[in-house]
Amino acid sequence: MIKTDILIIGAGPTGLFTVFEAGLLKLKCHLIDALPQPGGQCSEIYPKKPIYDIPAFPEVLAGDLVDNLMKQIEPFQPGFTLGERAQTIDKQDDGSFIVTTNKGTKHHAPIVAIAGGLGSFEPRKPPITGISEYEDKGVEYIIRDPEVYRDKNVVIAGGGDSALDWSIFLTDVAASVTLIHRRNEFRGALDSVEKVQELKNLGKIELITPAEVIDVYGKETIEGVSIKRGADVFNRECDHFIPLFGLAPKLGPIADWGLEIEKNAIKVDNSLDYQTNIPGIYAIGDVNTYPGKLKLILCGFHEATLMCQSAYHRIFPDKRYVMKYTTVGGVQGFDGSKKQAPKAVVKAIN
Amino acid sequence: MIKTDILIIGAGPTGLFTVFEAGLLKLKCHLIDALPQPGGQCSEIYPKKPIYDIPAFPEVLAGDLVDNLMKQIEPFQPGFTLGERAQTIDKQDDGSFIVTTNKGTKHHAPIVAIAGGLGSFEPRKPPITGISEYEDKGVEYIIRDPEVYRDKNVVIAGGGDSALDWSIFLTDVAASVTLIHRRNEFRGALDSVEKVQELKNLGKIELITPAEVIDVYGKETIEGVSIKRGADVFNRECDHFIPLFGLAPKLGPIADWGLEIEKNAIKVDNSLDYQTNIPGIYAIGDVNTYPGKLKLILCGFHEATLMCQSAYHRIFPDKRYVMKYTTVGGVQGFDGSKKQAPKAVVKAIN
Repeated sequence: MIKTDILIIGAGPTGLFTVFEAGLLKLKCHLIDALPQPGGQCSEIYPKKPIYDIPAFPEVLAGDLVDNLMKQIEPFQPGFTLGERAQTIDKQDDGSFIVTTNKGTKHHAPIVAIAGGLGSFEPRKPPITGISEYEDKGVEYIIRDPEVYRDKNVVIAGGGDSALDWSIFLTDVAASVTLIHRRNEFRGALDSVEKVQELKNLGKIELITPAEVIDVYGKETIEGVSIKRGADVFNRECDHFIPLFGLAPKLGPIADWGLEIEKNAIKVDNSLDYQTNIPGIYAIGDVNTYPGKLKLILCGFHEATLMCQSAYHRIFPDKRYVMKYTTVGGVQGFDGSKKQAPKAVVKAIN
Repeated sequence: MIKTDILIIGAGPTGLFTVFEAGLLKLKCHLIDALPQPGGQCSEIYPKKPIYDIPAFPEVLAGDLVDNLMKQIEPFQPGFTLGERAQTIDKQDDGSFIVTTNKGTKHHAPIVAIAGGLGSFEPRKPPITGISEYEDKGVEYIIRDPEVYRDKNVVIAGGGDSALDWSIFLTDVAASVTLIHRRNEFRGALDSVEKVQELKNLGKIELITPAEVIDVYGKETIEGVSIKRGADVFNRECDHFIPLFGLAPKLGPIADWGLEIEKNAIKVDNSLDYQTNIPGIYAIGDVNTYPGKLKLILCGFHEATLMCQSAYHRIFPDKRYVMKYTTVGGVQGFDGSKKQAPKAVVKAIN
């Protein structure tokens, strides 16, 4: 059982910054995220895209934003349960919560902060009968660890950045890479499209277009796919089939936690502390809704900050916390690190 | 008469970021600030101090934060009325406002956003009878333009960073610099204290401690000051006397605008749009108060953002604004500049 002060569901920018604001209050955090790395959409969907509306960043790449946040929270040593989805929540007699993931990992905390963004990102699956039987047996919708594909024969399907970039990357890892797309045209960064063209010319990527995978086969694990091109249908042996058709956000199991939901978002009390209808459970960032809500990263930062103050009072109802400015009081990490502005000296001039 | 869409009182971080969020909505802004430069406290009080709680900045100097914000809002070409204090507000029949400064400059706008921080910073004045008669006639409490002191004889009073730093700076400008402090000990950055010691040893700064200026004299303008050291009282001729005893925040004339005030802050509706009790006047950043309010820069950013949406609906009650993400839609400045993420290409691979 993992124990912490604030259990954060979702490791996107809002969830990450919560660790910092909680840390200033000496509260420890643990984050759960279905994706294999922190950063949420910023890392998974658009790491190389610039964002222009983060205050005091005239321009910042989404991936760099996440890197900066990770550096900012490092002194507060957050825990992470990555690649697992928060599945169930159980309220304990003392008002605390146990949250269990789809892989059975249990987390115990007095406060739960849902920073789930647009929800957990579920891969769009191709409409192939029986494909679910091969999931984790050679069929994957997200590449978590490229080493899995070393010296394997890999078939990738898709026509966007993800399919292009992973095809390029895996040519150095896999025994063979076959890329299948239902059109001749690919939609992605110019660089990536040109690189795939070059690798195809070199014979390092086999391209099958316009075509679709219509079936998968194999005994225990996948052994090959059936491909339809025009009127032709033919088989291709492979060890892995990776359809990369993008990710679609879904609120997921959180929708069944008894929270008040409105238009796929969790209602919170924005007049006070972004708490949900269940005391002790907060919702911050894109996952929440209230009158005038804007789904902007900078709003999530503010919501996280006010939420942490409320959480502190809930955990320590009798303690009075006096806010100190970091410029004046500095920042002290759980790792013993300390940052502070140089103090003024008092010194005679003779 | 200066005309704009949103008239912002206060050019600190919150006021500056308002220009950006308003700009995304194609609304123009003009800022009034009593200080001679933008940035508020960050520029005036602690430009060289690090801040640790700006999201995605593990550490940023207050002055750099302001520089970044100025760069971010540049495409939206804000207007500035600096070195003047917003004095009076007059509501027009059409619901718009005319704001007049202490120097008589008039501004007309449908929306007023008070981002006044802790208030306007009023210099702490020494208790010298009749000193007010010499204000702007050789007595100054803030140095706005060092060139005023070229080849002049200057007496500075004070024992903090401001007095130390300006004494150092003016040795290269003024004919003579005399520094008076009521103690032998100075309180400031070690560098500055040591530099003053060195300049004193070189005879470039005359130091009179422990001593106080107890009188000022002169016909039209100041001609000298009376100094008391122990039992001695003596005169010192000078062209300028600059007491630098720090700045104290005061809500100032805004307190008389008919706004609901609570503990020196303006009450706003945080459940909706940070509007005050007077429709069309908003208060954002450290100047406002609501349940759970935290006087943090990052909170001002959020409040500015929601406020701009509300202002848009007030100015264009019939238009429906659909928020676009900067990552998707880019940022288009009033100067014609355009920033946008590279679009995906659609290209065949043969």
